[in-house]
This record gives sequence, structure tokens and C-alpha cells, in this order.
Amino acid sequence: MAGINQNYKKLAAGYLFPEIARRTKEFQKKYPDRELKRLGIGNTTEALTPAIVEGLIKGVNNLADPSTYSGYGDEQGNTTLRRVLSEYYNSKGITLSPDDFFISDGAKPDSSNIQSIFSPDSVIAIQDPAYPVYVDSNVISGRTGEYSSIIGEYDGLIYMPCTEENNFFPDIPDKKVDLIYLCSPNNPTGAVATHKQLAGFVKYARENKSVIIFDAAYSEYISDLSLPKSIFEIEGAKECALEINSLSKFAGFTGVRLGWTVVPEELIVEGTKPGEVRDMWNRRQCTFFNGASNIVQEGALAVFSEEGLKESGNLVNYYMENAKIIMKGVTSIGITAYGGVNAPYVWIKTPGGISSWDFFDKLLSETGVIGTPGSGFGPGGEGYFRLSAFGHREDIEAAVNSIKKDLKI
Amino acid sequence: MAGINQNYKKLAAGYLFPEIARRTKEFQKKYPDRELKRLGIGNTTEALTPAIVEGLIKGVNNLADPSTYSGYGDEQGNTTLRRVLSEYYNSKGITLSPDDFFISDGAKPDSSNIQSIFSPDSVIAIQDPAYPVYVDSNVISGRTGEYSSIIGEYDGLIYMPCTEENNFFPDIPDKKVDLIYLCSPNNPTGAVATHKQLAGFVKYARENKSVIIFDAAYSEYISDLSLPKSIFEIEGAKECALEINSLSKFAGFTGVRLGWTVVPEELIVEGTKPGEVRDMWNRRQCTFFNGASNIVQEGALAVFSEEGLKESGNLVNYYMENAKIIMKGVTSIGITAYGGVNAPYVWIKTPGGISSWDFFDKLLSETGVIGTPGSGFGPGGEGYFRLSAFGHREDIEAAVNSIKKDLKI
Repeated sequence: MAGINQNYKKLAAGYLFPEIARRTKEFQKKYPDRELKRLGIGNTTEALTPAIVEGLIKGVNNLADPSTYSGYGDEQGNTTLRRVLSEYYNSKGITLSPDDFFISDGAKPDSSNIQSIFSPDSVIAIQDPAYPVYVDSNVISGRTGEYSSIIGEYDGLIYMPCTEENNFFPDIPDKKVDLIYLCSPNNPTGAVATHKQLAGFVKYARENKSVIIFDAAYSEYISDLSLPKSIFEIEGAKECALEINSLSKFAGFTGVRLGWTVVPEELIVEGTKPGEVRDMWNRRQCTFFNGASNIVQEGALAVFSEEGLKESGNLVNYYMENAKIIMKGVTSIGITAYGGVNAPYVWIKTPGGISSWDFFDKLLSETGVIGTPGSGFGPGGEGYFRLSAFGHREDIEAAVNSIKKDLKI
Repeated sequence: MAGINQNYKKLAAGYLFPEIARRTKEFQKKYPDRELKRLGIGNTTEALTPAIVEGLIKGVNNLADPSTYSGYGDEQGNTTLRRVLSEYYNSKGITLSPDDFFISDGAKPDSSNIQSIFSPDSVIAIQDPAYPVYVDSNVISGRTGEYSSIIGEYDGLIYMPCTEENNFFPDIPDKKVDLIYLCSPNNPTGAVATHKQLAGFVKYARENKSVIIFDAAYSEYISDLSLPKSIFEIEGAKECALEINSLSKFAGFTGVRLGWTVVPEELIVEGTKPGEVRDMWNRRQCTFFNGASNIVQEGALAVFSEEGLKESGNLVNYYMENAKIIMKGVTSIGITAYGGVNAPYVWIKTPGGISSWDFFDKLLSETGVIGTPGSGFGPGGEGYFRLSAFGHREDIEAAVNSIKKDLKI
């Protein structure tokens, strides 16, 4: 008699974004004439740049010609792309072998799947607030107890508070944990860890034989050169960390789909020799994945061309200019805001200390602007609200003007 | 102290195809002048057809223009593509809602991930031989005991023998099982289940409240109109089956990556109401996946255009003509062969009853032809060997000629 994976029942409510969509739809039904301004989901809006379009077209044309057609690629990704990625890291002073890179269809699948190579009884530590996928993938895989709607936490999960006091980067855990999810630049807070902060976690992980799962999906948004873009800039990180990244936010690949995970040969856990954890991720990918699209991988190669890097840099600058506009606008009316400098997210404190969802409804009804309630990212996000800098300039400006003009604070 | 998922250690040897690659490389090193003829991996070789190339180019161009650019798509897939797929099934007399379709990056990820929504203590039944992914994904997820290298089986897994006696389609299990993996047309045997045979399984599944996971990745290779292309042609299947399919073999998308899984609203398991299993797969995809590439989905839409279907049909015919050439060639020298009529695989009995791997070495050394040892698909494949019909016509002909001329039987 077939039964379901009961862990699904533990999942708290629906995923954040469907709930936003539901409330938005309800609002639209009620006020069909009101214009909506979306600063919610961190979704890219600008066209792919010319060099990258050319790469993708080349990818398609390769398949149109029997002499260049390719079928299944390596599950680990195109050999050239893995080499190019390792060279890109090398150019920033990080020595990694092409064999340490595993190309995938995105950072979300990798972030959610990576837990599967680790012990089912691993103790998980997450930043609070955090990208919901880290939590949900571990809930579904049975590494948590039940959800308490009173405290908004899953039993057995270690929440590392990210607060104004610690500049939204957590202190190291005060107990032993096995897997630590860190995201810097952070979604949703926009905070970026310093070298010193990351070094603290690397030291902790080495002492406690934990593994840091480092999500660097927004690393290209760091403009302050003193801040680390990769965990591997920290000495000793290769023995205790793996890193996930993607072209979604760097090159507008949110819908195109390409990411990668770096599992250094040096990474070890309890009972393994160097290379064995990497072999396991390799085996996982070979069993559950069949490679990223060969068309998309051609596009990714174009991103790392001289022209592609320049164009992608301009794209990042465009969104960061948006972030500046949002920061300037919301702070001009007295709202306290964080992030938005080395990250495409502005993390605002709800005026008057109202709840995140109440502020969602207030902002929507008063200004037509849709943002993301901080509490959707964990209990530590309560009282905060995320505004995304992804959008057309004119839409960002219109949203900021509405907030300045119509928000009652 | 982080540890690994110990289930990985249960996995028997490496994945089949890496071992083939290793032996091939060794052979090439020893005989650098010998020409290799690959009938091993079932990998498409012919160029994408014009209508589909046009669709993919349109997909790229959409992203090059800010007015048609799209970022994240729905995790379930493009609404139009889901509708088109449901209409395609409807045109064959199968009524399914677009909401029953979940677009993915391929049948392999779906085949391996689908187990995750079911209970961890589910009893699994697989055809023997079978596509290794069904077994390996369940081993990694802890639904089996240890592997016995003596009998070549995992403890706790129910093997349903596919033999000459039952025309390579298994009898229904003689005990209660929870999840049943069926693949028809079958990889590796090329056998196709009849309506009556599938109806037997549907009856069993309904009586025992089991779920059939039906892999229809080769359904478009069925030319005999009396044979079912979908499990949903069987009355009552929607309550007890889900189906996985892909464009890999139909339209040459092996490297492009697009598949889908049909989870009918009607599907129920122990303790669920209609719609709940479908909701779980939806939740799984929303957490672990971020949608198939929007470029690739445009290509998929083109496959289901009038021109695309015609061209894809021609592609299938091309490979099936290859299968005929292989069948004719091997049987002409007295080899017993199965499949190859409604499936792109020819399943040959090793001459003289030698082992599958011995035949691999013999075939390679005598003829330069690379095939796939049947034992790589499970103990029931021992003494058999798979030849794939995917290849350029001239290569297929050269391989068959070598076999006819040089194989010592």
C-alpha cells in the first residue's frame, strides 16, 4: 500500500511567493484599475546582452548541423565551461581544479539537493532569515521535527539570528552543528559577510568538522573590493566548505537556467578521504541529473568571454543603480533600510514595528507596490520587508515615487 | 560532525556507462589504430529539425528583447506548453488536464526524483533488467538493503524477471509492493507491453493500492497501433499511475533537456484524497526545481506544431530504419535478437551463452563495436547485450558489417 513521504506534512503553509501571488490577485480583483508595481520576487527584467545572445544562438545552430550536433553531455557539465569557471576563480586568486566544478540548471536545485549526500541525521544550521529552500529541502528530507506556528520554527533546526545588532550576519553557533547554510551577499537582508566573519565560520567548521554550504548567487553584486566574493578566499575553507553559484542574477539567466556547485577535492567530512565528498556529489549528479542544456552551456561560455563579462557587469550596475534609487527613496521618508549597496535587495524595517504581512497589505493598498514580507524568510525576518532592485528603471522609479508620495508613516 | 549519506556506499560498482568508457579507453590505448563503432549509449546523433531549430531561436530572441524577455518561469512549466501537451494526449483519446503536467529538464531527473514524494519504507518493484536510475535513486534514498554481488541484487528490492519466456514483460508481483517501475517500450530489452499486460498491472495496483511509475520515454517509437503508448490508455490507470516522458528520443533533445511527468489529479495513495499526490509533486518541484529553460520550452512548443510533429516522426523513422538494419544483420549470422521493432534497442542473446561483459570485450576486440552489457541493467540482463539504433546510418551499417564479417560465433 503506497504511502506518501510524511515529511511534506510538516511544511509550514505554502511557499512564500504563491501566498504573495494570492494576495495580489485578490487585490487586483477588488481594485481592477489600480496599477501594480512589483518589487517582490527577485526576478531579472532586462534583456540578455548581445554577446550572450550570440552564444546561445551558436548553441542552437550547433544542434542544427549534424557535424556539430551533440546529444547527452557530461552530467558534470561541458569540459570547457568547467575549465573556464576554474580560470575565472583562479583570476581572483582562488585555485580550484575544473574537476571541482559541477554545472547544473541552477543554484536552487543545487541548494536543495546538496543535503542529500549528507547523513540524514545531520544537524542543520541556517541564517534566520534565509532563503526558504535551505529549510524546506531539509524538512522534506526528514532532518527536522515539527513546525511550531507559535515560534515560527522547526524543531531540531538551529536558527542563527541575523539582526540589526550583528549587522545581519550571524555569530557562530554556540553548539555543534553539521551543516551550515550561509548566503552572502544575503537574500533577503542584502548583508555581506566580511573576511573576518567568514574566517570565524571556517574556523568553527574546521574545529567541529562541519560543512559550510555557501550560497554565492549574488557575489557579482559586491562592489566593495574588501568584501569576499567566495568562501574560498578564506584560508582553510576548501577543507570544510562547498559553494553554489549561478548566472541567474549575474547575466539574467533566471529563465535560461545555469548554475554550478564547487566541491573542492580537499573537502572532507567524518570518515572520508579527500575527494570522496566530491565523488559523492558526482555520483548524485550522475544518477539524478542529466547535464545542463547544451544550448545554455554555450550561452554560459559567452558570459565568461571578455565581452560577456563586460556586458554582465553593466547589467549588474543597472540593477545596483535601481537599488540606490530605492535606498535613497525609502530613507528619505524616514524608513530604516539595510542592504542595497553590495546586494540587489533592500531590507527595510517596517515603520511603526508592524508585522511583515501587515506591511505587505499596507504597502499594496496605499501605493500598489508589491514587496516580500520578511517573515516569509523565517521568524527572524518578522518586522522586516524586502524590496528587490530587479526591475525596469522606470518601474523602480514609479514604485519609489508612490512610496514617497502615498505611504502613510 | 558532518557525515555522509551512507546509502551511497551500498551502490554496486560504478554506473554502467563510465565502466564502458573505461574499457573503451583501455582498448583505444592498446590499439590506437582500430576504428570504434558506437552502438552503446542510447544517444541521439541526428541534427535538430528545422521547425524545432526555429522554435529554439525564437526562444533566444525573445530573451534578447526587453519587451519579450522573461525571467523565472513557473516551476511546473510554461502554461501554453502544459496545455499543448494535454491536447496532444487528448488527441490520442486520453483526457488529462494541463494541471496534471509538470515540465522538467528530462525524464532522468523525474525518474530519479519521483520516489522522494513517497514513503521512505515503500517496497519497490522493478523490471529486471531495467534502466539503472530506478534502482540507484531508491538505493540512495534508503529503500533497499545491501547489495549482494553473488546474486547481483539489492536486499529488499523486488525484481520482476523479464525473460524470453514472458516476452520480456514481467508477470505481476506475487507479493504486495508499493511502487512499481514499468518502462515500455523497454530500455534495455526493446519489449513493448500489450494493453492486456498493462491492464493486469493496473488491476494489481488498484487492488493493492500500489503506484505504477510508467516510463514512456520511447513511446513515439511504437509503430504497431495495437500497442499502448501511454499507461493512461488503460481504464482505471489514472487512480494508480503516473507517467514520465521526454523529448530526448522523440525530437533529439538528449542534450537540449526537456521532459515531463503526468500526475493525474485522480491518483491516490494510502491516506490521500484526489489531488493530494499531484500537490505533493508540485510542492517538490517548487522546492527543488526552478523550471525548465524558457528557451528549451519554446523549442518544445515547436515540436508539437504540425511541422514539428512531422519532422520528429521522420527522425524516429530514421532511427527505426537503423534498428531494422541491426536486427537483420545480427539475425543473419544466427544471433537471437529481440526488440528493435517498436523500440530503438535490439536486445541480443550472447552467442554461446557467454557473460554480457565477456561479450562486450569479444565484440569490441573482434569488431570494434561498442554495445552495452545486459548485466549492467540488472541480474536478469546477464547473458544479453543491448545494441542501440541511435547513430548515423553509415556508422550503423559499418558496425553491422563488422559484426557480420568479423564476429566469431
